[in-house]
Amino acid sequence: MHMEENKNVHHTDMYKSSNLIVRRNQEFTITIKLDRAFDEQQDNIQLEFLIGSAPDENKGTYIIVFFGKNKGEVRWQARVVTTQGSDVTFGITPAASCIIGRFRTFVTIVSNSGKQRTQRDPDTDLYVLFNPWDPADQVYMPEETDRQEYLLNEVGTIYNGEYNNVTSLSWNYGQFQKGVLDACLLVMDAGKVPLIYRGNATQLARQGSALMNAQDDDGVLVGNWSGEYSTGTAPTAWTGSPEILLNYASEGCVPVSFAQCWVFAGVLNTFMRCLGIPARVITNFCSAHDNSGNLKTDIVLDETGKMDRDKTRDSVWNYHCWNEVYMKRLDLPEKYSGWQVIDCTPQETSDGLYRCGPTSVNAIKEGELSFQFDARFVFAELNSDVVFHKSNKYGKTKVIYVDTAYVGKLVVTKKLNSSDYEDITSNYKYPEASIKERETMQLAESRGVPPRDYVPLGEAGVDIDLYADTIKMGDNFPLTISIKNRNSKTCNVQCCLTGSVVYYTGVTSTSFKFETKDATVQPLSTQTLRIDIRAVEYMPYLVEQSNLHFIVYSYIEDRDVSISKMKVVNLRPPELLIQVTGTPRVGKDFMVSVEFMNPYNFTLKDVELRLDGPDLIQTKTKKYKQILPGGSVKYKESIFPLISGKKKLIACLDCSALRQVTAQIDVEVLKV
Amino acid sequence: MHMEENKNVHHTDMYKSSNLIVRRNQEFTITIKLDRAFDEQQDNIQLEFLIGSAPDENKGTYIIVFFGKNKGEVRWQARVVTTQGSDVTFGITPAASCIIGRFRTFVTIVSNSGKQRTQRDPDTDLYVLFNPWDPADQVYMPEETDRQEYLLNEVGTIYNGEYNNVTSLSWNYGQFQKGVLDACLLVMDAGKVPLIYRGNATQLARQGSALMNAQDDDGVLVGNWSGEYSTGTAPTAWTGSPEILLNYASEGCVPVSFAQCWVFAGVLNTFMRCLGIPARVITNFCSAHDNSGNLKTDIVLDETGKMDRDKTRDSVWNYHCWNEVYMKRLDLPEKYSGWQVIDCTPQETSDGLYRCGPTSVNAIKEGELSFQFDARFVFAELNSDVVFHKSNKYGKTKVIYVDTAYVGKLVVTKKLNSSDYEDITSNYKYPEASIKERETMQLAESRGVPPRDYVPLGEAGVDIDLYADTIKMGDNFPLTISIKNRNSKTCNVQCCLTGSVVYYTGVTSTSFKFETKDATVQPLSTQTLRIDIRAVEYMPYLVEQSNLHFIVYSYIEDRDVSISKMKVVNLRPPELLIQVTGTPRVGKDFMVSVEFMNPYNFTLKDVELRLDGPDLIQTKTKKYKQILPGGSVKYKESIFPLISGKKKLIACLDCSALRQVTAQIDVEVLKV
Repeated sequence: MHMEENKNVHHTDMYKSSNLIVRRNQEFTITIKLDRAFDEQQDNIQLEFLIGSAPDENKGTYIIVFFGKNKGEVRWQARVVTTQGSDVTFGITPAASCIIGRFRTFVTIVSNSGKQRTQRDPDTDLYVLFNPWDPADQVYMPEETDRQEYLLNEVGTIYNGEYNNVTSLSWNYGQFQKGVLDACLLVMDAGKVPLIYRGNATQLARQGSALMNAQDDDGVLVGNWSGEYSTGTAPTAWTGSPEILLNYASEGCVPVSFAQCWVFAGVLNTFMRCLGIPARVITNFCSAHDNSGNLKTDIVLDETGKMDRDKTRDSVWNYHCWNEVYMKRLDLPEKYSGWQVIDCTPQETSDGLYRCGPTSVNAIKEGELSFQFDARFVFAELNSDVVFHKSNKYGKTKVIYVDTAYVGKLVVTKKLNSSDYEDITSNYKYPEASIKERETMQLAESRGVPPRDYVPLGEAGVDIDLYADTIKMGDNFPLTISIKNRNSKTCNVQCCLTGSVVYYTGVTSTSFKFETKDATVQPLSTQTLRIDIRAVEYMPYLVEQSNLHFIVYSYIEDRDVSISKMKVVNLRPPELLIQVTGTPRVGKDFMVSVEFMNPYNFTLKDVELRLDGPDLIQTKTKKYKQILPGGSVKYKESIFPLISGKKKLIACLDCSALRQVTAQIDVEVLKV
Repeated sequence: MHMEENKNVHHTDMYKSSNLIVRRNQEFTITIKLDRAFDEQQDNIQLEFLIGSAPDENKGTYIIVFFGKNKGEVRWQARVVTTQGSDVTFGITPAASCIIGRFRTFVTIVSNSGKQRTQRDPDTDLYVLFNPWDPADQVYMPEETDRQEYLLNEVGTIYNGEYNNVTSLSWNYGQFQKGVLDACLLVMDAGKVPLIYRGNATQLARQGSALMNAQDDDGVLVGNWSGEYSTGTAPTAWTGSPEILLNYASEGCVPVSFAQCWVFAGVLNTFMRCLGIPARVITNFCSAHDNSGNLKTDIVLDETGKMDRDKTRDSVWNYHCWNEVYMKRLDLPEKYSGWQVIDCTPQETSDGLYRCGPTSVNAIKEGELSFQFDARFVFAELNSDVVFHKSNKYGKTKVIYVDTAYVGKLVVTKKLNSSDYEDITSNYKYPEASIKERETMQLAESRGVPPRDYVPLGEAGVDIDLYADTIKMGDNFPLTISIKNRNSKTCNVQCCLTGSVVYYTGVTSTSFKFETKDATVQPLSTQTLRIDIRAVEYMPYLVEQSNLHFIVYSYIEDRDVSISKMKVVNLRPPELLIQVTGTPRVGKDFMVSVEFMNPYNFTLKDVELRLDGPDLIQTKTKKYKQILPGGSVKYKESIFPLISGKKKLIACLDCSALRQVTAQIDVEVLKV
């Protein structure tokens, strides 16, 4: 089957598989040994490729390729490349829109005495994948640098934290790792994706977004945001996709526990790249969770200006991860081709099912929300308004302030050939307050988005902002309220600050601080109020990923006008140290060590350490019963590399009191 | 609550409910008895309307209407109509886009000593529905005659049979029958339709199409096409929706067994009309079942020209019923408002879930398939091509003939104010072979529909057609093959006829006939071949609804060209006789009798007779263990009418050997 030659031409040499893997609309060659020389005029040979349980010529699940006489119309082009003695080499080109997956291959000799067919041999099974190199393929991607990053890169970076303090973690996509391709095909079989859809990237992306979560369809991952993960692996403990996909496959398609958005997005990214569809993971900071369909996130303050947790049901996620996949949208007008949003995190059911997209990024930017699929949901994540309500003493609430710029603050993805992030906010949104933005909102309104019909709110002539530096978890720190008076008169401002501990989904766990301060601000000047936040106040209540959330309610007495602002402070966890000793070289051991010291005055219990490195080692986990205050652990592993080049080692420490402490290191493996 | 007055103005007087039922954006009045006269300057009264388990002002699930001082911004307009002594009459107008459903009503008096709220009283619960009379409502329907038919008519006609022999059955929608409104609201609660979607007709239509079938979500009806219905009621035995909806509600939301397309469509129609959304049932004759997404129905003939049942997996349904609902599509460009297709029959999963639509009828006609929801699926039902393949002796199949006109032959619905059908094919399709039709197909292709890329087939200059008269089940009859030779030379034609028994879904049960005949046809003349079909050939194999399916394969030797045609023959069942004795008059008994004679030479077993008549009786069923050959049964029922006007009585006899024998009679009930 000319394995090496074919795999090189088809860009499939990095798949760790002994079978032939090819891409659509690109010729591959097969040599067949006959018992005598092949005569194109007399002989009649058929190559047959079958997929699924009921192969059918009309459905493209039973492909017959004819050679010699009796050559009919064919779905896959074919030719005789060379004949050499009794060996004949055929060239076969799978159709540009054919079904992708694992085909069983047979050779049939047709003669007057009937048909003779070879036995089934799993070793000759042929995988056909999407082909981003071919202009006729739906997923054609013209730039080689783009294909290198979005299709072939096995390690990526996923961003989290908060928009003005972006943090990152490395993720092992591992789409070429042994068994991953079979696991991805199994996911489709288990999810009963009709074979006929499997040649259409749009359908596959839609199905993929449904299949990654266990809701509805026993998909790959169980979502869990409860903080209680003892029956599985904490979402924060994973380092990559292969461990998850291989576990799903080896356990007979039982959903794997547990995931949150970046885990869902990481595994979906692997699934897409593995099948040949260019894909990337996106992070949207301050992502609205539109559970009402009205593009408004409602924050309710009580009579005193403190956040009313019972009445505030909506939340803005500090960040949310989804995927983009690159394709021609054959079902939409041409301008909506290109990057498409898909999202497999089960948030609200979108339209009755836990899945979302594909929806065109271009359409989101223009506010054209009529086109399939789920455009409105994605638009809301990026463009919702935050509406602050305040109750009076009778319990009647009133809108006091609207922040139209808080949501969809920053959209990022990994930069090409770098582990920095690229700001792609402008792919999704026109600049705040621009004419184009107004046009977008108008078009969106004509597509059924409720208008921004707020009763005009008084203009205060005062700007309020909240500031904090990057803070280490366990530190005391100052929070600054800056009050800028743009008026020519002195103004008196009452500020109420509520501080809460929140999950990354914006859901409040505990309020730990409520403080009021007054200020008198001179005309045309700025005054700052400093509020000290002490570790003893927040440490007892911290939840995963250590986010503090502050809301300030300010009342400008002189003008009877209110302003509210919010800020999330993401606390930096302690450091994890990863080090390599020795020179990494193919066929030679080297050592890696991972070290951690507990800086807190409490014991860390049931600590799980994970080490991952595509092409270097399979995912390793190590458990520690406890790490005492001031105590430290050191984990060492010996690695024997087989493949040279730039590699990455990823480490992650996780326990219920301290989530997602991560570290990564680049490793250059030299040749033998 | 001024019940009679309000219900008249709101067109809700026909609902059999003791609660107040109103429509959106139309004022209703409530009089409250106070212990002293109301003072608009001093007093502070709130009316509160609550829906759902977590009423919330921001979500429109907690409506507060203020009177007197302290009147704030409000969602529902309100005014004092009159005060008379200590009685005060308030006028309240629910917002034009508010949530529909059952609201709990409270009166709250606010005074300096606090709030005083009335107790919950289910009798004052208020139902709010869609309002097709109001131009500001999303479901506004301008013509009163249309509203009378599509919203207020409680009895309808559903068409079936085949396109040149359309038969019909009456259906009791019974949307105003006691308990039906509560059952419809319960369907939404059981299906967890978010309250926030319940003011949006588009979302309700989409959810409704999913909730009528039990797949995915334990909806109202279990689909069954197996022929084995002994664990429930046969789909062919029902006469209307109320029996089904009330059964679903009283059994604690356990899905009701069993349904096929017209039952699904009938119940969905009740659901929509009951909530205030204009709706009608549509029948599409020769409806393609697109299980491959390629808009092609493949019929495979074997080497001899006989239909190959193993290789023919696609089918064309003799007819298929769906619904249209009338609304403004706020999410789409304006021209796509109007009638929308929704379909709740679980055919193939469309896009992963058993539901379909709403999709704009206008968009289907233009081939604009990018707009939500499921346009492509509906387009395929109307526009698929039937492709005939024939195998050669090597098993290699070849396309021999394509019929582009067979599918979507005729689309009908009940005519306004009549029980005849209205041909609405032109709402869905431009005329076959017109320029506009070509443009539609081009646009559809640019939206991802695979092109009609057939290898040009030889033009035979010969037309083949199949004819049969209307046939009574149990009769012998002739089938005629007409061969028209348009050439100036004599032609020799070989015809192979396959006769099968099929379900209405086009699925073949048994082939009972295969006959070949040759003909020599003179130039420019027509010859007919007569093939006799005898009752003894088909009677043993008949399945439900008694359809025979014929395929003729014709080979025109002189030109080496093939033509294939299909025809369905729907056999007329024996008659059911329904008669009324006495003059129906309010408050006076009259008699109805239903008679049936078994004309066959076999015994009918476990026969179920059903009698239904909205406003006259609740659905009655009567079972007969057996009806011997030549034997007859007569069922009598006494009816005591309470409401005058035009009514209908519907009878249906059903058993496994003989399905859906129906009859209906108009009854004019005179006033007392």
